[in-house]
Amino acid sequence: MSTRLSESRFAKRFGLTTPIALAPMAFATGGSLAAACAKAGALALIGGSYGDLDWTSREYGAAEDELAGDATALAKLGCGFITWKLDEDASALDWVLERPAKPAAIMLSFGDPTAIARRITDASVPLICQIQTIAQLPEAVDAGANVIVAQGGEAGGHGMNALDGRGTFTLVPEIADWLAGHAPHVQLLAAGGVADGRGLAAALMLGADGALVGSRLWATRESLAPDAAIAEAVNACGDGSARSKVFDILREKNWPAHFDFRALRNAIHREWEGRIKELAADPAAAVARYKEGVATGDYSRAHVTVGESTGLIRSNASAAEVIAVIDEEAQRLLG
Amino acid sequence: MSTRLSESRFAKRFGLTTPIALAPMAFATGGSLAAACAKAGALALIGGSYGDLDWTSREYGAAEDELAGDATALAKLGCGFITWKLDEDASALDWVLERPAKPAAIMLSFGDPTAIARRITDASVPLICQIQTIAQLPEAVDAGANVIVAQGGEAGGHGMNALDGRGTFTLVPEIADWLAGHAPHVQLLAAGGVADGRGLAAALMLGADGALVGSRLWATRESLAPDAAIAEAVNACGDGSARSKVFDILREKNWPAHFDFRALRNAIHREWEGRIKELAADPAAAVARYKEGVATGDYSRAHVTVGESTGLIRSNASAAEVIAVIDEEAQRLLG
Repeated sequence: MSTRLSESRFAKRFGLTTPIALAPMAFATGGSLAAACAKAGALALIGGSYGDLDWTSREYGAAEDELAGDATALAKLGCGFITWKLDEDASALDWVLERPAKPAAIMLSFGDPTAIARRITDASVPLICQIQTIAQLPEAVDAGANVIVAQGGEAGGHGMNALDGRGTFTLVPEIADWLAGHAPHVQLLAAGGVADGRGLAAALMLGADGALVGSRLWATRESLAPDAAIAEAVNACGDGSARSKVFDILREKNWPAHFDFRALRNAIHREWEGRIKELAADPAAAVARYKEGVATGDYSRAHVTVGESTGLIRSNASAAEVIAVIDEEAQRLLG
Repeated sequence: MSTRLSESRFAKRFGLTTPIALAPMAFATGGSLAAACAKAGALALIGGSYGDLDWTSREYGAAEDELAGDATALAKLGCGFITWKLDEDASALDWVLERPAKPAAIMLSFGDPTAIARRITDASVPLICQIQTIAQLPEAVDAGANVIVAQGGEAGGHGMNALDGRGTFTLVPEIADWLAGHAPHVQLLAAGGVADGRGLAAALMLGADGALVGSRLWATRESLAPDAAIAEAVNACGDGSARSKVFDILREKNWPAHFDFRALRNAIHREWEGRIKELAADPAAAVARYKEGVATGDYSRAHVTVGESTGLIRSNASAAEVIAVIDEEAQRLLG
C-alpha cells in the first residue's frame, strides 16, 4: 500500500489531504457541513439530491461564502444529484456548473447517467457516478465517469433493494477488477459502511482508491440533520436499521421500483415493513401519522437516515474531528 | 498490523500457517476438501451441518484417514453443525467429540447455542459460534464461544434474511468493538465475501482475527460440489446471486423463519422470488420440477450454493492453491 493516504491516487486527483469524500446527502449535506469537510481536506459534495434550485443554490452558495478567501478548500467543493430527478429538471445542475469557481466534481446517483452526464463532461467538470451493481458499471464508464462509487446495501438512505443489490465487501473488489481491465484511469470509492479508519483501510485493501462517507458525517455538528435525530443514531445498534420501501411511500416520493431506502427501523417502519403492497395501495392514514411525527420530532414515526454503520457512531462530533480520526486510524492500520 | 499472517492471534491459537478457516458447507465440505485445507495450513471444518451421523462419520473419517501420519494437519480438523438441527439429534456431534484425536474445534451456526454448547465446552473442545447480528453476540459468548464468526448477508447458503441481517463490512468492526470491551480473549472471524487476499486483508483491517472462507473453497477440485455447478459459479457475475426462502421451500427444509438462503439466482429462483407466500402455500409442482433439475444437473432449476463472491471466482482450482493465493495476496497487501 501507499505509505501516505495524502499521496493516494484519489487524494492527488482532487487535491485532498485524505482520500475521503463527503456523501451528498439530501437535506443533511448543506453548506456548513460541506465547508467543514473541504477545510478538513476531503472532497465535499453538497446534497443537491432532488435538484431543488433554491435549496441547492442557497447551500452551495453558503459553502462558497464560508470558503471565500480559501481557494484550496473551495477547490474541494462539488455537488451531488439524483440522476432520475435531473431528467425532470436540471436547473440546479446548470446553476452549479455555471459557478465562477468551477465545481470540483459532480456526482450522479440512481438512474442511467448517459444523457445528463454530457452537460457535466462538456463543462470539463469531473464526473462521479455512484452504482450498486456490476450491471450498471459499463454505462457509468461510457458516460464519462472519472470516479465510480461502489455503494453497498449497508449504506443509509437510497440504494438498491436487497434482492438486486450487493454488499460493499464484494462489490468493491469486483468493480476494481473490471476497472483494472477496462478503464484503469477511472478511480473507485467504496460507500456503505465506512465510518471509521478501519472502514477506510478495508476499502483500500479491497481495491478502492478511497471512501465516500455518509452516515458518520451525517451525525456531526455541521450537518443539517436535527440534533434529536443524531441522538437516535448515536444510541442505535447497527442491527437497528433496515432497508425497504416504507419511508419512500410515507414521504410520497416516486422512486423507481428497484431502489429503496435504509433508515432506523423505528415503530412505523416495523408496522409496515411486512405489508409494503398494502401500504402502497392505501397510504393516506400512515402518511398523515408519519408527517405528524416529522413535524413533532417523534422518531418513532419520523425517519432517521443512517446506514448499518450507525452502530459505529458513538458521538455527535465536528466534521473536522471525524475526518481527522478516520484518517489517523486508517494511516495507523496501514502502517 | 502483525507483519506475518502466520503469527496472527487466530493462526497461533489453532496452530495454522494462515488465519483462514474452511467453512463447514453442507454437502460440499467433505473429507477430501477438509484434508486438503488442513494440509494447506487452514482450520478445516467438515460440513456436518444437518447432523446426519452417516454422512458426518464417513466424511470426517475420510479426512482422518487422509491425514493419518500427519499429526500437524490432523490437529487442524474440526466440524461444523446447524445448531437447531442438533437440538433434534446430536448423535453426529457426539460421534465427533468422541474421536481418538480430539477435534480442533466445533462450529455452531443458526440458533441459540446455549444448550448444545455445553457438550462441546465440557469436552474441552474449542467452540466457534457463527452469528449474523449484534443481538446474537452476548448469548454466543455466554455459551462459551472461543471464536465468533461474523457472517454478513453476502455469504452463500444460509444466513439471516435481508431485513434483519447485516453486511460483513459493518458487522465485523461492531462485533470487534463489543468483544474488546466485554470478552477480549474471544477471537473473531469475518465470513461472507472473503474470496481472495483483498478480502482477508480487509477483514483484518476491520478488526477480525481471520476469515472463514466458503464459496471460494466450495469451487475447488476437492469440493463435493458437482463440477457443472462449479462451472456455473465460475461464470457468474457477483450480481447473479440472491437471498430468499425459495430454495429452502423447494428443498423442503423446515428452517426457522428469520433465516434464508443465498444461491445463484437462476430461472426457478426468479420465477418464485416475488411470490414466496404463494410458493410456500402450494409448493408441490415446483418442488417436483426442482427435484428433476437436481437429478438431471439442470442448473436453471437446481441450486448453486455460492455467495456474492461468486463474481471473484474465476477458476476451479485446488484448495491448496486457493489458500496459498489468498495468504500471499493478503500478506503482500499488508506489507
